[in-house]
Amino acid sequence: MRRIVVAPDSFKGSLTALEAAGHIAAGIGRVLPDCRVDRFAMADGGEGSIDAVLATRRGQRHLEPAADAIGVPTTAQFATLDVGGRLTALLEVAQVAALPAAPGSVEQRSSYGVGQQLRRALGLGVGGVLVALGGSSTNEAGAGLLAALGARFTGRDGRTIERPALRDLEHIVAADFAQLDGRLAGVHLAALSDIDSPLCGAAGATAVFGPQKGVASGRVALYDGWISRFAALCETAVGRQVANSPGAGAAGGIGWALQLLGAEARSGAIAIAEMSGLDAALAGADWALTGEGRSDAQTLRGKAPLAVAQLARRHGTAVTLLSGAIAADALRTLAAHFDGCFSIIPRPMTLELAIGHAGELLADAAEQLTRLRVARLAS
Amino acid sequence: MRRIVVAPDSFKGSLTALEAAGHIAAGIGRVLPDCRVDRFAMADGGEGSIDAVLATRRGQRHLEPAADAIGVPTTAQFATLDVGGRLTALLEVAQVAALPAAPGSVEQRSSYGVGQQLRRALGLGVGGVLVALGGSSTNEAGAGLLAALGARFTGRDGRTIERPALRDLEHIVAADFAQLDGRLAGVHLAALSDIDSPLCGAAGATAVFGPQKGVASGRVALYDGWISRFAALCETAVGRQVANSPGAGAAGGIGWALQLLGAEARSGAIAIAEMSGLDAALAGADWALTGEGRSDAQTLRGKAPLAVAQLARRHGTAVTLLSGAIAADALRTLAAHFDGCFSIIPRPMTLELAIGHAGELLADAAEQLTRLRVARLAS
Repeated sequence: MRRIVVAPDSFKGSLTALEAAGHIAAGIGRVLPDCRVDRFAMADGGEGSIDAVLATRRGQRHLEPAADAIGVPTTAQFATLDVGGRLTALLEVAQVAALPAAPGSVEQRSSYGVGQQLRRALGLGVGGVLVALGGSSTNEAGAGLLAALGARFTGRDGRTIERPALRDLEHIVAADFAQLDGRLAGVHLAALSDIDSPLCGAAGATAVFGPQKGVASGRVALYDGWISRFAALCETAVGRQVANSPGAGAAGGIGWALQLLGAEARSGAIAIAEMSGLDAALAGADWALTGEGRSDAQTLRGKAPLAVAQLARRHGTAVTLLSGAIAADALRTLAAHFDGCFSIIPRPMTLELAIGHAGELLADAAEQLTRLRVARLAS
Repeated sequence: MRRIVVAPDSFKGSLTALEAAGHIAAGIGRVLPDCRVDRFAMADGGEGSIDAVLATRRGQRHLEPAADAIGVPTTAQFATLDVGGRLTALLEVAQVAALPAAPGSVEQRSSYGVGQQLRRALGLGVGGVLVALGGSSTNEAGAGLLAALGARFTGRDGRTIERPALRDLEHIVAADFAQLDGRLAGVHLAALSDIDSPLCGAAGATAVFGPQKGVASGRVALYDGWISRFAALCETAVGRQVANSPGAGAAGGIGWALQLLGAEARSGAIAIAEMSGLDAALAGADWALTGEGRSDAQTLRGKAPLAVAQLARRHGTAVTLLSGAIAADALRTLAAHFDGCFSIIPRPMTLELAIGHAGELLADAAEQLTRLRVARLAS
């Protein structure tokens, strides 16, 4: 074999994506010491997206002040890099308001800090902004982000709500986008996620993702109503209907807010694969290996390994999944997307042991797969 | 691919060798429904050898009376089949005196019943006798087997010991082989095992295998001395020195007794592979899959999967190991013999769960390996 592409996601709890790629490459190298192995770090549009792209692409990290989810000053990073000749910013929502360590209650949290970051990026003269939406702790339809970018929300008492959170949505009676940051008009915005949900309803942000952020089950319908009313107010003001667009429900509705501003909803994994050069590398490669800590039904909803599989197959390149664990109910469906789905587990063992030895298990498994891959056929 | 050979050992505690072959073939069939899959059951010269051979070869089972390890009448089976034009008997020592359920103490147990079986086979006019030595519970240098075949052992009191056991060896003062069954002379005898041990000493039967049969650690040297003296007595009488031959220490020294009678020591797995037609089937096959319940340092000592690997490589056929568990310290060494060593374990789980689902896990793993195996190379 002349060239193999290695592009795993992180193995959560044990290995970053780049570490995982290193272990897989090491295993391949034991069998094919002279084969070129192109390593990529994958991410699915959540935490780790910046690291994944900058692992293989030259770019700049910016560490800037921003409010955290409850307004406490903190610092957060974003990246700028050249994408197709255009200076592009890559932001992670998780930099400002990430689960699981988010402060305060879900009612108090706001995406205001993400809007501040976006504004900083605009100040650098970027022509594009990509926002990785995964891992958010907020559920306020991106009201904070919109406010940070110049939207004005007025409460029942006539006052402007500077940093709106979920609990404020109930009281907002007016939305004014006249003072919206004018630089947004000239910028290509993209919202990166693996979520297809609309903003509201049974498949929406609050019903599906609210509970894991702290929304009490008895309050889902109430909050969903607040968000629905707030969104209608904004959509009327802007003159754009996006609440039912796929991805509007991503990041507690930040997906909706970005689409309201004209953003394109994109698969985070695919966007990151293209940005990092993975898509180009897959063309003409002999084999691609991807992986992740655990493969289950989620994997099939646009997670990084599936994106690698889709891109690889587009190029006619064989692609294999190497996972820390493959859920019982997912194998049959996963199998259709890969040229073999394998776990790194060599014998019955505990999850703790597997996590503790993930690196060596991954290298061993990659070595064995490579041995099989290079074995000759008689006919 | 045009033809794949499947030849696993049993997965102890969950699947017979033939069942395992069926599950592997089922997994392959999901990917390559039209590919010919030749199934074989493997064994390493222990329990299951008769079943393994008769799974693919026409032959006859004989159920005959025989003494168990402590002399209680029981019945035991052996097989006869045509091997290269010669009627050949295949006996299993484990049929008469198997661990772990053997009756009595190791001091009381005798291989007399195995000799009876051999005598029955001679009565059928066989031209060859193969004795599968694995799984024995005796440690008496095959004294019982020799007695059953006509050797006469005299005790200090001048009496003949009819059914000698380990405890009798101390008292034997004379060995006479004049009345040995004359039919043995015209028969090709083979002792099948995966044991290279000599009869006595630190690497011998008593030191290495005695304890697991019930020899107290403080009595190893004592019994080893008895056996050494007994063997010298016999070797002088017969005029053949075989106590240091590889395999003399197999089956508590039944290996030695058979070699004393002129038997050839052979790898059980290789002999069974040849007898079952596996060796011939591997020639020109596209791929071979073998497997076993657990792969460890033992696997490298002539166990069935290693024999499959050796035969496959002799024919230039790629061969892959699919195991219930691969021991941490064995992978590196195993890997050199196979085109990939894989476990059937898809995620962290308990041994109990793996054993309980071995069949489906095996089929799933074989399917995934097949998917990888058939994936095309770009270059």
